[in-house]
Amino acid sequence: MTETKPRRSGGRAARQEARSQKDESIKPYLERKLKPVEVIDEAGLAQIEDNAEIILSEVGIAFQEFPSALDLWRDAGADIDGDIVRFPKGLCRKIITDFAPASYIQQGRSLNRSVMIGGDATVFAPNYGSPFVTDLDSGRRYATLQDFQNVVKLTYQLPHLHHSGGTVVEPVDIPVNKRHLDMIYAHLRYSDKPLMGSVTAPIRAQDSIELCRIAFGGSLDDRTVLTSLINASSPLRWDATMLGAATVYARNNQACIMSPFILAGAMSPVTVAGLAAQALAEALSGMAYCQLVRKGAPVIFGTFASSMSMATGAPTFGTPEGAMATYVMAALARRLGVPFRSGGQLTSSKTPDAQAAYESAATLLPTMQAGVNFVLHAAGWLEGGLSLSYEKLIMDADQLGMMGVYASGVDMSENGQAMSALRTNPHGQHFLGNSHTLQNFEHAFYRSTIADNNSFEQWSEEGSPDAARRANSIWKQMLNDYEAPKIDEAVDEEMLEYIAIRKDSEPDEIG
Amino acid sequence: MTETKPRRSGGRAARQEARSQKDESIKPYLERKLKPVEVIDEAGLAQIEDNAEIILSEVGIAFQEFPSALDLWRDAGADIDGDIVRFPKGLCRKIITDFAPASYIQQGRSLNRSVMIGGDATVFAPNYGSPFVTDLDSGRRYATLQDFQNVVKLTYQLPHLHHSGGTVVEPVDIPVNKRHLDMIYAHLRYSDKPLMGSVTAPIRAQDSIELCRIAFGGSLDDRTVLTSLINASSPLRWDATMLGAATVYARNNQACIMSPFILAGAMSPVTVAGLAAQALAEALSGMAYCQLVRKGAPVIFGTFASSMSMATGAPTFGTPEGAMATYVMAALARRLGVPFRSGGQLTSSKTPDAQAAYESAATLLPTMQAGVNFVLHAAGWLEGGLSLSYEKLIMDADQLGMMGVYASGVDMSENGQAMSALRTNPHGQHFLGNSHTLQNFEHAFYRSTIADNNSFEQWSEEGSPDAARRANSIWKQMLNDYEAPKIDEAVDEEMLEYIAIRKDSEPDEIG
Repeated sequence: MTETKPRRSGGRAARQEARSQKDESIKPYLERKLKPVEVIDEAGLAQIEDNAEIILSEVGIAFQEFPSALDLWRDAGADIDGDIVRFPKGLCRKIITDFAPASYIQQGRSLNRSVMIGGDATVFAPNYGSPFVTDLDSGRRYATLQDFQNVVKLTYQLPHLHHSGGTVVEPVDIPVNKRHLDMIYAHLRYSDKPLMGSVTAPIRAQDSIELCRIAFGGSLDDRTVLTSLINASSPLRWDATMLGAATVYARNNQACIMSPFILAGAMSPVTVAGLAAQALAEALSGMAYCQLVRKGAPVIFGTFASSMSMATGAPTFGTPEGAMATYVMAALARRLGVPFRSGGQLTSSKTPDAQAAYESAATLLPTMQAGVNFVLHAAGWLEGGLSLSYEKLIMDADQLGMMGVYASGVDMSENGQAMSALRTNPHGQHFLGNSHTLQNFEHAFYRSTIADNNSFEQWSEEGSPDAARRANSIWKQMLNDYEAPKIDEAVDEEMLEYIAIRKDSEPDEIG
Repeated sequence: MTETKPRRSGGRAARQEARSQKDESIKPYLERKLKPVEVIDEAGLAQIEDNAEIILSEVGIAFQEFPSALDLWRDAGADIDGDIVRFPKGLCRKIITDFAPASYIQQGRSLNRSVMIGGDATVFAPNYGSPFVTDLDSGRRYATLQDFQNVVKLTYQLPHLHHSGGTVVEPVDIPVNKRHLDMIYAHLRYSDKPLMGSVTAPIRAQDSIELCRIAFGGSLDDRTVLTSLINASSPLRWDATMLGAATVYARNNQACIMSPFILAGAMSPVTVAGLAAQALAEALSGMAYCQLVRKGAPVIFGTFASSMSMATGAPTFGTPEGAMATYVMAALARRLGVPFRSGGQLTSSKTPDAQAAYESAATLLPTMQAGVNFVLHAAGWLEGGLSLSYEKLIMDADQLGMMGVYASGVDMSENGQAMSALRTNPHGQHFLGNSHTLQNFEHAFYRSTIADNNSFEQWSEEGSPDAARRANSIWKQMLNDYEAPKIDEAVDEEMLEYIAIRKDSEPDEIG
């Protein structure tokens, strides 16, 4: 890919260059040094695996209205009963361990943005799927393409979001059957971080791939540039839309997150061990299906699992039950040897308040400690996913930065042990002037962009802004300062031409 | 202790009885089933222990202006140089492992409120030491005795706060030398949960003990009814006030939390491993000192450790560095075989907003996962400890309830595995009507008192209250509903008489 000739003023180009260089120092993904937290023992995990095999072999999984999947499963030795597939014990697991990669690289449009998905890597992606946006100035409203582009631009600038995500919000001002084109274009044009493809119809998955072929320059057959979210219709069911999209992506060597979506009590039993057996069975069947489509196609074991209010049926987030499910599923994915997706910063709050933050933190810390590899909804999620909050996007992204420090654990080097300071510092005297402190203070602690650590008096003088108010100023400044990453003009024109032709080829569908 | 004759109307007594019975079902402390999270390996922990012994033997610890401690240390074989004590390697550790209990029971005034401190138990106590209080109605102001009593009454009613705490706020309207009497009385009269004693002078520690002798009925020599906070003047120093209080408590078989108070970079090196070696050395010297005063006196290994803004010097909370320190110190305490105090729900925010909640959650979850045994500041802490927030007290206490569920881990029983539901529930159909769901839904999930999980529309109709606003309604209702636990009238009179005599015996000191 050749670089575009600068059309801009020297000053602007220089600033862009400076930004680009600054970005070089930021890691494209988080590498965990801490061991994952385990909450049940080997015997418990093996029991859940046995239970999943019972589900797969006795109850089976529905592959609805998608005959080609049934054909593939019949050929692979499964039992077909209507659209229910029953799997000989161990079949799905063997297919996955034989063929699915333990980790893979998803390229970014700029190669230095490429992320590893799997192993000790954790990749944070923003909010996904919200029909609404909200901010402190304008309140809650339907999301538009402008909002979508704003979130892509903010994510591009937030260093601890490693991935541009997918449907960061639903641009409901664009016809249902055409908005995916504008969404994929926005990711490719306004960011250079890795992205997700459309899954709402096979042709939209194909469009996502075609646009990436243009943006990434040529065949994708030997590289993965899209990781896309394929939700199960839990319990124990994959539908034709999702299977159709998964088939397109797997055939083209693009990654699929095969992801049960479960509110315990509704889409699964209320208990964590019951939920886990079911989600494992569902994910096994989905990931194995992708291998039947194309051996070696990258897949992620996905789980979205939370609790619900048994009084009202409303979903609840940031709960201990959700955290336990994340730990258990992550351990099951490690035993299987595939990357794992779960968690995020989830909340049912309607506003970026204390509830939003407690619940988000109580989701994020277990997410990271469980060793989740791909984290959707890592920033901006509000109101059970119905809204993206501009302010929460900024606040959450700051928490992601802290996770990077957390996951790096304790420095036990000679400098980390600091005995030179401890042997020399007098009793009762502070360490601020100690040479060890002076040598280390610059990078000693994570510097929050959001936390106000000033005195009450200073904070009061500044108008007593709460965290959301401070975040409001930040995102507006960031959108003001935004400069797009470089792109080849010819590439940009080719994408726009493809989109125009595709938009002209169908009448608008209004959703 | 005999029970008071009911002086109240039958209705009120009956309600009190009902409340008392309801309380029977609440566990007096949290029992963790999850294994503690470890962030460094055995070799790393041993290295820190070696470093602490180097500090103890080569640099030493100052026992300032307290000659009797120097005498005890000289007799125990330490080297005395002015007020610096240098300890032969292993001396402090041997004294502690020979004599200090691995855990102890602290009795509550009602025996069913007694807590275990140590082992797999975690005890949550409220905020400590704030000169200010704040609430949404009246804003920030100096705390008064009325505020103190309010916090005691709220803590009494909050089931996940196991301990009444100590100086829950500073009642600055009462003379400095007399307020401890009113504080101890408030704990003993308005609550029956275990409490902490005064540490600001030896005579105030003695007063605390005398009032407990009255309230608990007789000698305390064979039981522990006070756990009190003895802060080191880090780095590497204990002062005469704290040593004086510790001496009184240890001599009377009452528990002391021997607690370095460290903002890394100021009171210790900036690195976690450096901080840990220093804090271990300080705590070892303090706990061993208590054993020299009385063999077997209960002690807690305490640590208050957080980071600071290297730009402004302001303390920072909820940071990854603070979490790492908690994990490491907890592991060191386990290896030593003594109970451990650290953590809480800490924040530098000035208002109960998202910052307050992110930072509190990012302190609390590591606190619980580290296996901390005694958690001060578990609810209400705001503004780096300068304020107690009435609203945050309520919100934090809800988070403590979740920790109880979290720490109980995953139910792997047959019911927990839920295979009866999974074998019978049809593909694609929800589990809400499944008999397994119906049998379990009542206790399936922790029910938050604060989270609003309703729809945006319903929440808007209710006036769009944020979490702090909802908490504001709750604490006012709780104070309105408060009924004091029973107390023998004669006991109450004896306490009041003791307090009157003691108050008359000294002129007021205005602080």
